[in-house]
Amino acid sequence: MQFMFKKRDNIKDVEEGKYLSPKFDENGLIPVVTTDFRTGELLMHGYMNDKALKKTIETKEAYYWSRSRKNIWHKGQVSGFIQKVKEIRIDDDQDSVWLSVDIGSGSSCHVGYRSCFYRSIPLGKIKDEEKLEIEFKETEKTFDPKKIYKDELNPTKL
Amino acid sequence: MQFMFKKRDNIKDVEEGKYLSPKFDENGLIPVVTTDFRTGELLMHGYMNDKALKKTIETKEAYYWSRSRKNIWHKGQVSGFIQKVKEIRIDDDQDSVWLSVDIGSGSSCHVGYRSCFYRSIPLGKIKDEEKLEIEFKETEKTFDPKKIYKDELNPTKL
Repeated sequence: MQFMFKKRDNIKDVEEGKYLSPKFDENGLIPVVTTDFRTGELLMHGYMNDKALKKTIETKEAYYWSRSRKNIWHKGQVSGFIQKVKEIRIDDDQDSVWLSVDIGSGSSCHVGYRSCFYRSIPLGKIKDEEKLEIEFKETEKTFDPKKIYKDELNPTKL
Repeated sequence: MQFMFKKRDNIKDVEEGKYLSPKFDENGLIPVVTTDFRTGELLMHGYMNDKALKKTIETKEAYYWSRSRKNIWHKGQVSGFIQKVKEIRIDDDQDSVWLSVDIGSGSSCHVGYRSCFYRSIPLGKIKDEEKLEIEFKETEKTFDPKKIYKDELNPTKL
């Protein structure tokens, strides 16, 4: 897979060069931020390995590495909510990826909400011994995960 | 610091409960996605430890953990490009954070661009032995990093 990537041999080329030189972490993964190309809404945060990145570039559909299932994961394969990739960007030091995707009126979140980021953390002084309450910003689920996923493993790990 | 957080003792509470139960990784970090609250533009991808998260919540300015400098980092302390936090969200399994921030007409990227994600990866079939060329989507720097950072360490690592 390394033939696709320029070796990370100097910082100037990584930051301002014209070749892709992604940095995969000690587990071979790179974090991925996925937004809705129409609204800019943040949909999810995930990971790719080199094979998932290659498949995403070539097929224009989002593939991730599932850390809970330990396999390459074609997003939407079970739910039908395929992410059509409109653009992929890489950041300054090439250690994270941004996918801008089209999911139409579909969803991104396995819990049933459109975005995985459906809860907000209140700002301001935290009192001693206070557990922080979070506020739901999406209140209606867009689908019923029990019907869609049936016996699939829940990817959330404690 | 743990008093602020509910223990992650069941998946239902993590996904649909009303208390913050963030998951920090084996290095004590949680990934953070930062977008511009006006445009939705993705500005950067970083990390926080528990102290940086607490300081961000309390001060309403973004603090991160710098993996290259190994310290808490008040974003904008050197450059002046402070990130005023408008909203913080947490995702379904509470292992990543979304900051929506106001940077006015400032910048996010130490290389000098507004967003760290200033280069795009072309989509489509990859030829054998082909290095992937990336395309600059921001062509003008918004500031001169040499003037702003002087002798500061470049955070990019190979």
